[in-house]
Amino acid sequence: MPDTVVPSVTDVVELTRALVRCESVTPREAGALQLLERTLTPLGFRCERMDFTQTGTDDVANLYARIGTGGKHFCFAGHSDVVPVGDLSSWTIGPFSAELSAGYVFGRGAADMKGAIAAFTEAAARFTARRGRDFGGSISLLITGDEEGPAVNGTVKMLKRLAERGETIDACIVGEPTSSKRFGDMMKIGRRGSMTVDLVVRGIQGHVGYPERLDNPIHRLSAIVEALVREPIDKGSTHFQPTSLQFTTIDVGNKATNIAPGTVTARFNTRFNDLWTSKTLLAHLKERIEQASAAVGGNGVVEYRNVEVSGESFYTPPGALVDLVAGAVRDVAGIDPELSTTGGTSDARFISAYCPVLEFGLVGETMHKVDEKSAISDLKTLSRVYETVLDRYFGS
Amino acid sequence: MPDTVVPSVTDVVELTRALVRCESVTPREAGALQLLERTLTPLGFRCERMDFTQTGTDDVANLYARIGTGGKHFCFAGHSDVVPVGDLSSWTIGPFSAELSAGYVFGRGAADMKGAIAAFTEAAARFTARRGRDFGGSISLLITGDEEGPAVNGTVKMLKRLAERGETIDACIVGEPTSSKRFGDMMKIGRRGSMTVDLVVRGIQGHVGYPERLDNPIHRLSAIVEALVREPIDKGSTHFQPTSLQFTTIDVGNKATNIAPGTVTARFNTRFNDLWTSKTLLAHLKERIEQASAAVGGNGVVEYRNVEVSGESFYTPPGALVDLVAGAVRDVAGIDPELSTTGGTSDARFISAYCPVLEFGLVGETMHKVDEKSAISDLKTLSRVYETVLDRYFGS
Repeated sequence: MPDTVVPSVTDVVELTRALVRCESVTPREAGALQLLERTLTPLGFRCERMDFTQTGTDDVANLYARIGTGGKHFCFAGHSDVVPVGDLSSWTIGPFSAELSAGYVFGRGAADMKGAIAAFTEAAARFTARRGRDFGGSISLLITGDEEGPAVNGTVKMLKRLAERGETIDACIVGEPTSSKRFGDMMKIGRRGSMTVDLVVRGIQGHVGYPERLDNPIHRLSAIVEALVREPIDKGSTHFQPTSLQFTTIDVGNKATNIAPGTVTARFNTRFNDLWTSKTLLAHLKERIEQASAAVGGNGVVEYRNVEVSGESFYTPPGALVDLVAGAVRDVAGIDPELSTTGGTSDARFISAYCPVLEFGLVGETMHKVDEKSAISDLKTLSRVYETVLDRYFGS
Repeated sequence: MPDTVVPSVTDVVELTRALVRCESVTPREAGALQLLERTLTPLGFRCERMDFTQTGTDDVANLYARIGTGGKHFCFAGHSDVVPVGDLSSWTIGPFSAELSAGYVFGRGAADMKGAIAAFTEAAARFTARRGRDFGGSISLLITGDEEGPAVNGTVKMLKRLAERGETIDACIVGEPTSSKRFGDMMKIGRRGSMTVDLVVRGIQGHVGYPERLDNPIHRLSAIVEALVREPIDKGSTHFQPTSLQFTTIDVGNKATNIAPGTVTARFNTRFNDLWTSKTLLAHLKERIEQASAAVGGNGVVEYRNVEVSGESFYTPPGALVDLVAGAVRDVAGIDPELSTTGGTSDARFISAYCPVLEFGLVGETMHKVDEKSAISDLKTLSRVYETVLDRYFGS
């Protein structure tokens, strides 16, 4: 809806509201990136749309905006897309009306994560207003419209394009809503990796009255499940929870009560810490599976299908970047953020291959839920935190 | 097809062929019972149709035919229905044409078990011809049209009706094709029971990234499967194989790769020997299940649905009846039959509640298959075995 977009503003609250009004449910751009272009261009940012299409996936619109050409390069990464509203009748306000009420901005994306984009934009505007456009470094916003979706035509491809033309990033904050209960109580310095594996277990179908003539793949699978879930995969690492593994489905679909099936399919997902890569973990799990299957005996076999790695684990050890951001949170918000690696995945998993990266943003309690909201005071504080980060990163 | 039925004959081969020509695939009567009535009535049998209907099941035609009113009562039990022909193009002769070829009668039901009905009819005809209709005892045929189907409106209800009117049976042979490779090599003196149980395992659904918040019912179920299948339920008894248990299906139907399900359903069937009743076995299995579930911990629960007992085990210990039939086989066919309790279920499971019962009949190798057949010589020998049984049972 480019024609209805409000004029450029850098006020964090008004910009958050203007972004929320764009109904940018993945993969729709819905004017959100155009609004950011109109806002950032007058500040001196060179805005570049990096839209990608690929057969079999949605067309995705992305925006890369940079000010400065040399010196250290600090990047803010985020996404302008939002998850669907879900059960509309459960919302007490319009999900895209961006109402102000009781000190909050309400609406889909207020927390995850249009509010953080607005906060960083305001921070950059104030920073460049004070320091001038030629402050000796570079600041960029790398905004994708495909984080809540397949994450194929967004951050991954943007980073690749930058690398191909020799453009490097020295440090990055992802503006995901990492605060847990109270603004500033948590930042993420890593995330577990995620891998999904489909198993097909084959045996010998047969009449249950003649057990000696069959090899029941369900009984083989149960031994495999036990081998994968009873014994911990690891005990966790200094900054990570233990690697976890959950079966998500098992399916046979056999209606005959007197026939044991010949085949059963199953799927598991594992969230793994920095003790593993997807490759070393898969090798370890296969070893467990083959041992369990061998212990069952018989002639059944296990086939591995659709091994899908949606992200390796990443970890930015405490050091310059972590100290810088944690210090800014402490000084601006008066709280020491916990350095966490819990939760799902984010685009930081892709960025970590290029530069130190961490995630810090608003309170995520209402993200993906009805009546998503962010406190106006939090939006303003986040903007100050980001500004302080820029100040300290580029020095005086 | 009552109008096309051939005139009454008691010759075992011709009667087998006439019965095969009736296309009595369960639950169709197709003239088979009418043919038997026309054959048995002239021999002095009082024929009584016991047809049953029940909402939700097929109407089933059954025949009860008895000669004699007092003395010891010997019953021959069987079924006139047959299983479908299956892949018709694989048959080398018409499944209902009852062709004679290379010393065999071919056709659906030739082995299972129209041949045995014909053999017993011929045996009874010869016996009463020699001994007269007032031989001091009673002989009956209890023929159902519902053995290969649900077995609800057949033998069970006929036996109940007889009991209700005070009619007792003293001994019974079921004419199932119990011979394995060679005529007379095996008779069945018992069968395992069969019970099917549906399990519903409930846990707490949740995002795989937060394993501490969920209770995966698949992981609980795998512990239950292990508890039921790894440790033998028993070691078998003198005349029975060990009790066996096979899971036949597990189903979740969850497509989301990042969500662990809240519920999983599973089904198992157990074939149990005479160490158990369905009640004692179910109690034992529930104990194993609850122990396994408790060992997993958490709050998940197991629900039992659709416990279906399709038959208790039965066993007729070696003694008068078994010796009588085994001796007749030895003397007529020159082979000592193995006393077995293997294989699937038969209507003997119902009869065993009323009187000693065993199963003896033709070679079952081709039953339920294409080109089902019985050797002409076997039909004639079986008729002599049954006749010898009647002679010895009623004495001279």
